[in-house]
This record gives sequence, structure tokens and C-alpha cells, in this order.
Amino acid sequence: MQNSFFKNCGPISIYEIIKILKIETIDISIDYQIKDIKDLSNSGDEDITFFHSKKYKDLAKNTKALFCITNESLKTELPKNCTPLIVDNVLLSVSKITTKFYPAAIDDVFDETAIDISETKFLNRVKYGKNVLIGKNVSIGSNCKIGHNTIIEKNVSIGDNCTIGSNTIIRNSIINNNVKILDNCIIGKHGFGFFPLNHKNIRYPHIGIVLIEDNCEIGCGSTIDRGSMSNTVIGKNTYLDNQIHIAHNVRIGENTIIAGQVGIAGSTIVGSNVKIGGQAGISGHLKIGNNVEIGGASGVIKDIPDNAKVMGYPAKNIREFLRDNKWYTKQH
Amino acid sequence: MQNSFFKNCGPISIYEIIKILKIETIDISIDYQIKDIKDLSNSGDEDITFFHSKKYKDLAKNTKALFCITNESLKTELPKNCTPLIVDNVLLSVSKITTKFYPAAIDDVFDETAIDISETKFLNRVKYGKNVLIGKNVSIGSNCKIGHNTIIEKNVSIGDNCTIGSNTIIRNSIINNNVKILDNCIIGKHGFGFFPLNHKNIRYPHIGIVLIEDNCEIGCGSTIDRGSMSNTVIGKNTYLDNQIHIAHNVRIGENTIIAGQVGIAGSTIVGSNVKIGGQAGISGHLKIGNNVEIGGASGVIKDIPDNAKVMGYPAKNIREFLRDNKWYTKQH
Amino acid sequence: MQNSFFKNCGPISIYEIIKILKIETIDISIDYQIKDIKDLSNSGDEDITFFHSKKYKDLAKNTKALFCITNESLKTELPKNCTPLIVDNVLLSVSKITTKFYPAAIDDVFDETAIDISETKFLNRVKYGKNVLIGKNVSIGSNCKIGHNTIIEKNVSIGDNCTIGSNTIIRNSIINNNVKILDNCIIGKHGFGFFPLNHKNIRYPHIGIVLIEDNCEIGCGSTIDRGSMSNTVIGKNTYLDNQIHIAHNVRIGENTIIAGQVGIAGSTIVGSNVKIGGQAGISGHLKIGNNVEIGGASGVIKDIPDNAKVMGYPAKNIREFLRDNKWYTKQH
Repeated sequence: MQNSFFKNCGPISIYEIIKILKIETIDISIDYQIKDIKDLSNSGDEDITFFHSKKYKDLAKNTKALFCITNESLKTELPKNCTPLIVDNVLLSVSKITTKFYPAAIDDVFDETAIDISETKFLNRVKYGKNVLIGKNVSIGSNCKIGHNTIIEKNVSIGDNCTIGSNTIIRNSIINNNVKILDNCIIGKHGFGFFPLNHKNIRYPHIGIVLIEDNCEIGCGSTIDRGSMSNTVIGKNTYLDNQIHIAHNVRIGENTIIAGQVGIAGSTIVGSNVKIGGQAGISGHLKIGNNVEIGGASGVIKDIPDNAKVMGYPAKNIREFLRDNKWYTKQH
Repeated sequence: MQNSFFKNCGPISIYEIIKILKIETIDISIDYQIKDIKDLSNSGDEDITFFHSKKYKDLAKNTKALFCITNESLKTELPKNCTPLIVDNVLLSVSKITTKFYPAAIDDVFDETAIDISETKFLNRVKYGKNVLIGKNVSIGSNCKIGHNTIIEKNVSIGDNCTIGSNTIIRNSIINNNVKILDNCIIGKHGFGFFPLNHKNIRYPHIGIVLIEDNCEIGCGSTIDRGSMSNTVIGKNTYLDNQIHIAHNVRIGENTIIAGQVGIAGSTIVGSNVKIGGQAGISGHLKIGNNVEIGGASGVIKDIPDNAKVMGYPAKNIREFLRDNKWYTKQH
Repeated sequence: MQNSFFKNCGPISIYEIIKILKIETIDISIDYQIKDIKDLSNSGDEDITFFHSKKYKDLAKNTKALFCITNESLKTELPKNCTPLIVDNVLLSVSKITTKFYPAAIDDVFDETAIDISETKFLNRVKYGKNVLIGKNVSIGSNCKIGHNTIIEKNVSIGDNCTIGSNTIIRNSIINNNVKILDNCIIGKHGFGFFPLNHKNIRYPHIGIVLIEDNCEIGCGSTIDRGSMSNTVIGKNTYLDNQIHIAHNVRIGENTIIAGQVGIAGSTIVGSNVKIGGQAGISGHLKIGNNVEIGGASGVIKDIPDNAKVMGYPAKNIREFLRDNKWYTKQH
């Protein structure tokens, strides 16, 4: 995790953490002051981490964290210097502790610190429309333009030569240079991540940000959610058309072109020089290689290797798609 | 029909109704004053109703309505105390009469009664952003927050502990407690219902509302249309992701989770504890059971029984989907 | 090309054009003043045109243009009075020259000429909400209504009896009479057209407009992009539901009905009396006939003849679709 705009309320006493998790069968002699909660590989020796799935066991073996929230069956994978905190539901427990460290990262309430841009230091530095609002901890580079009714909420850094459209909302984001964000976009709200519970779901904090690299263009009406523990990233010179939805933790490479109404679900990684046709959907937690082409309206539910051309639902190699629909090619 | 915010201009003389419908071959001796137009089961003995399809014949047999707009072939199903009014196009006639009772429910013109929230009684009761507008007949509970540029048009009731984002528009809706509606949503506009006619389609009134029950969350850029004769309902603790479209008369149960860019067409009923993957589409007038799981990008065109897991287009049982795509599972 | 709102900076000397294209192997004795750049059939004898694909060779044979940007293999198709300008990448060269004629048509920066409607001549002629902005070169007919926070940017003509919702942005568009555009729409921004280049894509100008004919309705959250060299057209009495995306150069006929979340890719032509179900997608450069019905969630990747009913992905005749899914019809 890097670049988080969210205030860390740590350090937090390990005794307090144990109390929150309602763990009674543990005996810790020293009241360690825990600085942060991080994933297995990024934790240092003053942090707490978490381990909820076997597929991360190699990372678990090498974690430097002092404590790890995990369950009975996984605890043996941890190194000796890392004390397991055994719970029933690892992710729910992580949510509770992350909430303790980052209470402001759970709910996205409108930014009440935002004031009219004419009352800020950007008055003569930015070209702006009517009714533009700017929150706290905002930086804007040279030669930028911001359209009417747009709200740059707190925790936003915008580089040089950027153009933001009208009616757009940005928060918790880093926008590099020469980026164009068109009208009606919402960049940097929390992702659709929560623990489903009957009667009242529990949201977990999203402490990641949205990072949009140089020369990107984001089309009208698009939504890009910020990451939960890592960042959502749009690589250099990647262009998005209108009404696109990029979920939390998605990472897209450079020079990628995404047509209208595409949706990419959480934590999927898309390579560079990828072309995605209109209305295509990509499931979560997938890896799409470099130079891939995905046909319009395709539904991608598996990883796609470099250089592949796919189409259909489920998306398959375009030659197979055409063969399977040969009658179609002939008759129509 | 319950909770309508639309003013009923009745009672209307049966003679006037007959004149509007251009019915000449009927002889009614008393000038009955008709109070309202309702569906077959909700009509009382001072109302007019309508009957346009055989599948409602059991309801027709028991209607208490005094008059019924119907056609030649269906009229025999009506009880004796209900006088049939025979027309060529039942629904078009219903539209004309409903328009007479509820003229304000046809077009959604912007609410010119809306004024700045600082000029209303909510000044010190609600936490609000810049440029928030409030229409007539609006109530807002305690501990609510309303973001910048949001418009609460006339006929909206919001409960306690609700958070409304920025740039959102709400009208003709009841929002219960602890509901979060994020940025750029449009809640409560009329549905996409009209009679197609060459040169100039005819809209019919939408006198239903949108009802959002406790603990729901509605993602950014979503649209939820109000019902025509009944209500559009989002059940308790149901969460919607970004860019979702819920059409008129749709009813969704409790604890349901709907991922980004899903669309649900008019009058479909979705059960409780349902999970719907991103970009899935559900046709109109269907019944989706409880505990159903619908895979991302699926196209649902048939009813789905309780507890089923479906995927594909047309959406089928997930085991069949995987079997039909076995080559896919193997090779990819 | 007709009705463009973009200022033509021509005439431009042919010597300057040759210099921009870096053509060295040509000898032109007269410094012709070129008035405009147009397509093969619309060019006059003072214009420059372009010819990049064999499928336009019949048009090329009859062009009246004085000069034509083309490549080595196509040049022989041109008539004698048209001098070929040979380049490696025809479309990239066209982009450069069009940019020279129409520099304002490349980027969509917010309209800084827009002022509050109460400071314009429309003060007493239009019924309007709060915070409505109007740009230069805007005309509005009689009996029109414009909702809160809506921005009519420069170069818009609106007819009589039109209703524009709230939070909507319109630019470079002609709206005829009795048109309803609902909330949160964006009409008339440039299309998703550019030359992909590593590190920095190059946008080409969009000098077309959006033309919305009489009696149309455009649903909430829809985006209609203006054309590049030709116009994007929505024919008379055509109704669009919510969250629809119409790309640049698309032309839709009359009395057509398009349900929610449909996307139509660039340059596709849709006939009259067409019905398109929710979430359907239509690829670019296709021709959809009159009276066609396209099922919800279909993916159309081929032309469709008049009167056809299609469904599926790829969309096929509905009888074939039902036959291929017979097991489905039986079992479910």
C-alpha cells in the first residue's frame, strides 16, 4: 500500500486489538504498539498483517509482521517471529482492525470542507467554470482547466496540463500530467466491498487511491473506484470511452484502449496495449496479458495470455468463436 | 397502489369517461362519480378498473369495480355488478383515463418549486453541501447528510441516518432509515412506458413511487425509475453497485447484492438473498426466486426458481453452462 | 458534412498543406487556396479530400476535389483533375489537415463563455431552474424548460416545446421541436476517435454535430457523441431509455425504441421502427434495417436486413436462437 491519503490512527495497542477481536485464548506478555495493518509482503516488524487463503502461503512464510490475523488451519504456515491471532472469519476481523486504524476510509460522505475555488489559492492559477468546489489537501499543477459544477474533494493531486470536465467528482486520487477527465465522472469513491450480513452489511475501509498516469483520457459518465488495500491504477496513455466502470484494485497497463460501457470487476489486472470492445465485461481477480484484443460484448471469465484475441461469452479464442459460429458466418 | 404522491383529480363523471373513450353504444342511466382508476384487485365499488389479458381472468371475476375498460372477447369474464366499457385498445384507453385522474404524473419536468436548502426548515436539521435544492412536500429525518448540487425534488420522504451523495436527483420516493445513495443517481423519474405511435408516442402516467427500505446502498450513477400503477421497491439491506438501472415496477427483496452495470427490466420481481454479477441483464415481467445466484454478464430471459445458480445467455443452470463449455474449461 | 458549428480557418495554401504532410516528391506550380476538407462525394473543386480504402473507389472516381490525400496503391482510382497527395498513413494525415482547418474541434474543454441564464436574452423566454448556464451561439425556441444545473454550451440550437432535465450538458447540437432530454445526459461531446500511438494518442477533430429530430425522448444518464466528419442523428419520434450510449456518426431512423443501457458503436446506421431490447450492443459500421427487432442483451456484429427479429451473441434470427436453445425452452 502506498500513497494513501487516509490518516492512520495508529499506533494501537495489541491488547486493544485482541479485545476487538474477542480473542481470549492468547497470552501476550508485552503491550506492543502496532503501527499499521498491511498485507503479508508489505508488513514490517511493527505491523499486523492477515492471512486468509492457502494461495498466499509463500508470502505468509516470509512475512515480517509481528502479528497475523488468520485461522486455525493456516497458522502453521507463519514464521516463528509472527504470532497468529486465531479468529473465525479472517476478513471480517481484518475489516474491524483496519477500521480502527483508518476510520475515515469506510464511508464516502460528501466533503464538507470543499469551498468555492475562487476562495482558494487556485483563484489565479487554474482556469475554472462556475460553481467549482475544492476540498482540503488538494494540489493542482500548471495550465489546468476545471469545468462547471465539478468538485475536487479532499486528497487529490492533479499534475500539469490536465483538463477536468463539468459535473465531475474526484476524491482520494492522484492524477498525473496531461490527463483529460471528461464530464460526469466519479473518480476515487470507495469500492463495492463489504461483508454481507443479514439485516446490515458491514463495509470495510478502502484505504487505496486511484492513480491515473500521464496522457490518459477518461470518458463521460465513467466511474473509477479507489482500492481497498492496494491502488486502482490506469496506466500511461490509456484511453477510456464513455460510461465505463473500473472497480476497486483494478490495474490497467499503458496504451490500452477501452470502448464504451465496458466493466472491469475488482482486483483484475489488465496489461498494456490491450484493446477492449464496447460493453465487454471482465470478471474480478483475473489477469489479462499484454497486446490482448477482447471483442465487443464479450464476457471474460478466465485469465487471457499475452497476444490473444478473444470474443464471446465465455470469451474464447476468436478463431474458435468464428468456427463455432460458422453457420452464422455463412448464412448471415 | 399505495403511497402515491400524485394528486388524484377525481371524482370524474362516468359520462365524461365514456366521452373520452368515444364509446357510443352504451346506455348508463346514472351519472356515477368515479373516484379513482385501480387494477382489478385493488378497485373498490366507486372505482373504474381495466382488464386487457386473459391471464388476469381470475382477478377479473372478483373485481369490485363498478366499471371496467376491456374488449369484446374478455367482457364475459366480469361479474354482473361490473359494467364493461368496450374499447379497441384497452391499455391506450387506460392511459387516457389515468391521465385524466393524474395529469401531473405523465411528464417529468424539473421541479420549479425547489429552493435552496438554506431557505427551508432543514437549515439546521440536515448537514448539507453547496447548492442543495429542496422541493415541496419533502421530509427528512434526523442525522442526514446531503451532498453538493443534489436536488431533492417534491414528494420525497427520507428517514433517519441517511446519506445522499452529490449531484444526485430524487423525486417521488420514500427512502427509509440508514440508506446511502451515492453520487450522480437519479431516483424516482417516470419509467420507460408509453404507447408507440408513429410520429408521436403517447406516454402514460406513472403514479407509483420508488420505495427504498432500511440499510440499502445505491451506487454512483444508478437510475431507479418509479412504478406506473404499482411501486418500484428495493428491499432492506440490498446493495447496488455503480451504474445500475432498475426499471419501473421492479421489486427486489432483502439482503440482495447487485454488482456494477446490471440492468433489470420493468415489472420483474427479484427475491431475497440474491447475488447478481456485474453487467447481468434480466428481462421484464420475470420472477427470480430467493437465494438465486446469477453470473456476471448473464442474460436472464426466464423465471428462475429459488436457490438456483445460473449463468450464460440465455442464463441456464451453472452446471449445464460449464458442461456446454467443457472444451473451454479444459483448454483455457 | 452539414451544419457544422466549428469555424473553418481556411482557406489554406496547398503549399502549406504539402509542408504539413512532409511530402517532398511533388511539384505543384500554382499556390491553390484550399477552402475546406471534405469526404470524396461532398468535396467541390476548391476542396481537398481523402481516400483510404478500396471500398470507396467508386466515390473516388467521381470526386470533384482538386487534391486527395491517399496512398500509392489507391491513387490510380482518382480522376485526372484530382491530384493525389501520397502519404504513408492516410487517416493520420487527414487528421493533421482537418486539425489545421478546424483547430477548435479536437478537444472538448468546458465552455468558459457560458454565463448564468438570468444574464441572457432567455431570462423571460424560457422556464429555467437554478444555476443554468448558457454559452455563445445558443438559440432556444418558445415554450422550453431547462432544469437545474444544466449547461447549454456554445453552438446549440433548441426548437419549440422542448424540455431539458437537470444536470445535463449539451454542446454542438441541433435539437428540433417537442424533444425531451432527461437528467444527467451529455449530448454533443467529441467521439472516441483518435490515432493510437504509443506514449501519446493523437485525437482527430470532430466537426460533426448531434441532430435530434422532432418528438424524441432521451433517457437519464445517456451520452450521444457528435460526429467526426458527418453528423450523429436521432430520427423523429425515437425514444431512448436510461444509460444509453450512442457513439459518433451513428444515424438512427424514426419511431425507433431503444431500451436501457444499449450501446451503439461508431458509424452504425439503424433504420426506422426498430425495437432494441435492454443492454443490447451493436458493433460499429453496421447497417440495421427497418422494422428490425433486437432482443435484450444481444450482441450484433453483422448487418441485419429489414423486418428481421434477432437475438443472442452473435445475434441471429430469433427462430434459430430458440432452436439452438431448445433444451433450454424445454427444461426451464
